[in-house]
Amino acid sequence: MASTNLKKVNPDLLRERNKCTFDRLELTHLLDGGADKTEERHSRENFFLEDPELRSNVPPEYLGHKEKYEEAVRKACIVFKKVQELQNAGKGGMENFREILGGQLGSAILKDGNPLTVHYVMFIPTLMGQGTIQQQAEWIQRAWNCDIIGTYAQTELGHGTFIRGLETIATYDPKTEEFVLNSPTITSYKWWPGGLGHSANYAVVVAQLHTKGVNHGIHPFIVQLRDEETHMPLQGIKIGEIGCKLGMNATNNGYLGFENVRIPRINMLMKNSQVLPDGTYVQSPSSKLTYGTMIFVRVVLVQDAATYLKKACTIATRYSAVRHQSKIRPDQPEPQIMDYLTQQYKLFPNIAACFAFQYAANWLWDTYNNVTGELETGQLDNLPELHAAACVLKAVSTSDAAQGVETLRLSCGGHGYMTASNLPSTYGLVTAMVTYEGENTVLFLQTARFLIKCWQNKTKLQNLTTIRYFEQVARKSLPFQKSVDWILSILQQTTAKMVDLANSHINERQRKGMVYEDAWNSTSIELVRAAELHGRVIIVETFKNAVEMARPKVSKELFAVLEQLLQLYAVSTAIRCSGDFLRFTDIQGRDVEMLQSWLEELLTLLRPNAVGIVDAFDFRDEVLSSALGSYDGNVYERLLEEAQKSPLNAEPVNKSFKSYLKPFMKSQL
Amino acid sequence: MASTNLKKVNPDLLRERNKCTFDRLELTHLLDGGADKTEERHSRENFFLEDPELRSNVPPEYLGHKEKYEEAVRKACIVFKKVQELQNAGKGGMENFREILGGQLGSAILKDGNPLTVHYVMFIPTLMGQGTIQQQAEWIQRAWNCDIIGTYAQTELGHGTFIRGLETIATYDPKTEEFVLNSPTITSYKWWPGGLGHSANYAVVVAQLHTKGVNHGIHPFIVQLRDEETHMPLQGIKIGEIGCKLGMNATNNGYLGFENVRIPRINMLMKNSQVLPDGTYVQSPSSKLTYGTMIFVRVVLVQDAATYLKKACTIATRYSAVRHQSKIRPDQPEPQIMDYLTQQYKLFPNIAACFAFQYAANWLWDTYNNVTGELETGQLDNLPELHAAACVLKAVSTSDAAQGVETLRLSCGGHGYMTASNLPSTYGLVTAMVTYEGENTVLFLQTARFLIKCWQNKTKLQNLTTIRYFEQVARKSLPFQKSVDWILSILQQTTAKMVDLANSHINERQRKGMVYEDAWNSTSIELVRAAELHGRVIIVETFKNAVEMARPKVSKELFAVLEQLLQLYAVSTAIRCSGDFLRFTDIQGRDVEMLQSWLEELLTLLRPNAVGIVDAFDFRDEVLSSALGSYDGNVYERLLEEAQKSPLNAEPVNKSFKSYLKPFMKSQL
Repeated sequence: MASTNLKKVNPDLLRERNKCTFDRLELTHLLDGGADKTEERHSRENFFLEDPELRSNVPPEYLGHKEKYEEAVRKACIVFKKVQELQNAGKGGMENFREILGGQLGSAILKDGNPLTVHYVMFIPTLMGQGTIQQQAEWIQRAWNCDIIGTYAQTELGHGTFIRGLETIATYDPKTEEFVLNSPTITSYKWWPGGLGHSANYAVVVAQLHTKGVNHGIHPFIVQLRDEETHMPLQGIKIGEIGCKLGMNATNNGYLGFENVRIPRINMLMKNSQVLPDGTYVQSPSSKLTYGTMIFVRVVLVQDAATYLKKACTIATRYSAVRHQSKIRPDQPEPQIMDYLTQQYKLFPNIAACFAFQYAANWLWDTYNNVTGELETGQLDNLPELHAAACVLKAVSTSDAAQGVETLRLSCGGHGYMTASNLPSTYGLVTAMVTYEGENTVLFLQTARFLIKCWQNKTKLQNLTTIRYFEQVARKSLPFQKSVDWILSILQQTTAKMVDLANSHINERQRKGMVYEDAWNSTSIELVRAAELHGRVIIVETFKNAVEMARPKVSKELFAVLEQLLQLYAVSTAIRCSGDFLRFTDIQGRDVEMLQSWLEELLTLLRPNAVGIVDAFDFRDEVLSSALGSYDGNVYERLLEEAQKSPLNAEPVNKSFKSYLKPFMKSQL
Repeated sequence: MASTNLKKVNPDLLRERNKCTFDRLELTHLLDGGADKTEERHSRENFFLEDPELRSNVPPEYLGHKEKYEEAVRKACIVFKKVQELQNAGKGGMENFREILGGQLGSAILKDGNPLTVHYVMFIPTLMGQGTIQQQAEWIQRAWNCDIIGTYAQTELGHGTFIRGLETIATYDPKTEEFVLNSPTITSYKWWPGGLGHSANYAVVVAQLHTKGVNHGIHPFIVQLRDEETHMPLQGIKIGEIGCKLGMNATNNGYLGFENVRIPRINMLMKNSQVLPDGTYVQSPSSKLTYGTMIFVRVVLVQDAATYLKKACTIATRYSAVRHQSKIRPDQPEPQIMDYLTQQYKLFPNIAACFAFQYAANWLWDTYNNVTGELETGQLDNLPELHAAACVLKAVSTSDAAQGVETLRLSCGGHGYMTASNLPSTYGLVTAMVTYEGENTVLFLQTARFLIKCWQNKTKLQNLTTIRYFEQVARKSLPFQKSVDWILSILQQTTAKMVDLANSHINERQRKGMVYEDAWNSTSIELVRAAELHGRVIIVETFKNAVEMARPKVSKELFAVLEQLLQLYAVSTAIRCSGDFLRFTDIQGRDVEMLQSWLEELLTLLRPNAVGIVDAFDFRDEVLSSALGSYDGNVYERLLEEAQKSPLNAEPVNKSFKSYLKPFMKSQL
């Protein structure tokens, strides 16, 4: 929703802004990474959001499914053209795509998803990462120019998580030097790739490679899907769209089946493994190298989790300042709902979590760059730890962000159920992240595997920074202190003991005769819990370090707020985990009571700055796209204004009255 | 989705059904309340679901917003006609409306809501409950015949929870013996009533009654909205639809503003209070009498929470039996995902909760009938306790059911994100219940108010059955026993201590100088927690009593399963509350470990019967409406089949290729 009516700002919001104790701009610059970065972002936002062609006459939620897609293609082409303009002007490349296509700007332009995104975020990167120099020369220019539009077809109806189980087959035929692709079962149909339904004309297809009668496992192939001129599906290509979903209905997720589809041998992406013309298979030197992209994507997801949560926090916090309801004291007017402690408890810990996840993402990004730097020199030692951290941070941040967005949506009462609040669609985007790029339970168990391995070889821990705390398991717990350090030490000790307990349960089950894998499965609820706690240790620790690093750089007013946010995040984590704390450490019920009173104190301290903090997230109204969350706080005017856009309101009497309702009503006389 | 393709049943499901240790039909009859009730339900289901007119050519999710509404009106008229047929045949009246219009059958016919439901569930009951005999004579027959269609307009843009704050004004004009309705502010616009947008031509409007210069508070008025012949809005009526929502997009929720709308004096519903022709206000004898309907609606919601959760359990459990993924042991084939302990932990406690909520609803229904029976004899003593129980059971069951449905949706991985799973729309329906008919945080605090009041007058507790356990606060906790009774006693003790603690915090804050209301607000996080725990006490206790009552009536095979479900519900409640248990009672970390191992044991015990239990919920495929959950388990065939219904798949090339995509792609050459 554009801020068409620049009415005066709601007086409650004005009052909140006047109360703010710190400089909001300073916080914005801190979060962006510098004033120059903020300016760049603003200029990109202007470039896209002030283009009248990128506005829609009717909000897409009122359109039919087909019309949603058509409108999305229209906009996606304009977005891509503008991306190319930026490239040509030397003002952007791959590094800005995430913002333009992702949670920040992308979801403002195309609220329901972009059918062409996968071309840039998966198709081109796969060509670059897995193609030989010759293949890159042949394909990347065409893809970069959007002469062809590609997607990435890996997941099948029957297999998502377990990619070794994919069933699509590419059989090499040395006679014609071609691969023959087939979908041997219904479950082998490709299912989910964005843009696959009706947008892309090429795909990277992941299939089991068969040559000389041997299956060499899954490999990527470039497959043409549609005629470049007519866009008609090529022979043997069974293709379409998978249908409606909870959200992202414009992404054109597709299905794809093959019936003897032939592609040239050189369409196999051969940077890592090759099939020679005679069908000889030449193996990849190291499979660990493909880890990189997977981890990179998870870094991005932690960042996106923070972005979506920030959006929802901004909307719910501003609304909670504008909305008045009921009475605290019978002799006083209806208070802002933000004055209810229960409302503060829904809002502020989530605001703190935005900072926690953003700092965790920054740390993961740095760690990723360090470790991939090491990889290039042949050093692989730190890869398992990075992988474990990336898994658990993705899992914790997306689960918490999804739950947080939903708590925030519900905190807006009935109005949070309205599409015009933009909270339902934000939830649709963030909850999808719980499942994709590694389902969270699966990821927790991958991290648990790392933790148990480390636990069993405890002597080698010295170099592993994320689990150095394992040594705390044997110590006596420190007595209660009102400090983040104390919470962190109790959290670490709890986690170490949980890992120890899970490990001992695996051992016990093995002693009773179970094989290791069954013992693992029987212990998996505790293993997930251990991994989750480990993730929380990392997040609290990185948040603490980031705030310490910021101390010399920021004003003391801002620093005070950052410290309160850190404390609130730590305390609410501690209360959330208090059952485990009480179980595994020496803390007592009275310590929990002190945590609770510290929590209540922090909520009260943050109350005057809540609007200021979310203002500093600096979302434009078009990005928030919310009647409840706009900067001017004219909530009710906007809700009524949005309702007028419903096509049902274009006529006073809908035709169904004449066709159905009146005949029914009159028939009863 | 109709079960058009009666293919053979998936072999995994067959195997599960063969493993089942009890008679599913026996359980179905138990849940329905007798074999005759099951048969009646089946015959009603046949009557509606086998009517070809009640099927849609295109699944409604593919339609535009306007078309969704039009299709819903078409179906709603047919549904109402059939309801009238049932009435005429003496086979149904108000008592079956809930099923026909609600969560069971209603959501199968009109997945996205019914624009006429409020006519039966709110408009007619209000006329009956609040109209005088004369008013009933005048209005009810017309409403019952659907000669007029009504809605119930209470909530406004600015006020939901706090109805005393409603702003719509009805000013009595003795000169013309009319009320004049006005909407003095934007926030006074009515907002949300179902069917108000374009369907209803009458409404019960709740407004502040002004007469002789005095505001007598809110009262109900019958207001005509639209011309009976043309359906055009009457003069001064500003009316329309509020726009898209997270779910229920066919319910035609509307807004309504008044500009000097005049209605006759006799259109005020005057059973309780009256305005005489000269404008004299005659007060209602007791305002407690209107409590009844509100409590009744909450009874219904607890039942609906159970129904939606049962649906989601059926879908996710069957899918988890059919879906194979990954490996537990490398030497064995991919297991059914239901063999993963983590998956069982997502499914089975929710299955147990279905029983818990259904039994809680039954208990609440009986209690409601007893107490309203007492009311008629002028006995009001038990009303506060009933009110407190209804509030907290509505809040706990709807919150848990919403969270449960979402957990179950996520347990189906990516396919749970598909509309074809019917899980997104089930979530849309169940999460709305968290907010409507009393927002859950508000309800928790109402129950807390009752608990604190009782705590402060502990001596008078003898007659109050739901809080008799308060006396346990002083006892020493019993040592661990593997029994539901032990868990219940620990839970009761914990709750009593939490109430005690919250109460002492209120007192402490008052001693420090806060007024009571501020002290209450500052303690409200703990008060909500106390109320929530109290709700769990009631649920565990009623579940336990219900299973004990069932013992003499059911086979021992079925009884064994009921006991396991009860135990699982109790144990998972205990683990969920273990932080509070450790904090407030004498239990230790090793007790939690024993609970955990009991939990794992119960999951394993229930594993062979999981499909049998959800089969016994006895949802027809049309009611489940899920590609993942159908009885035959042909999950993948159905997903592909459903995808074919997308209008995008009707043509191989969408027109957006020619209009947008091709020009864009070619422009890059």
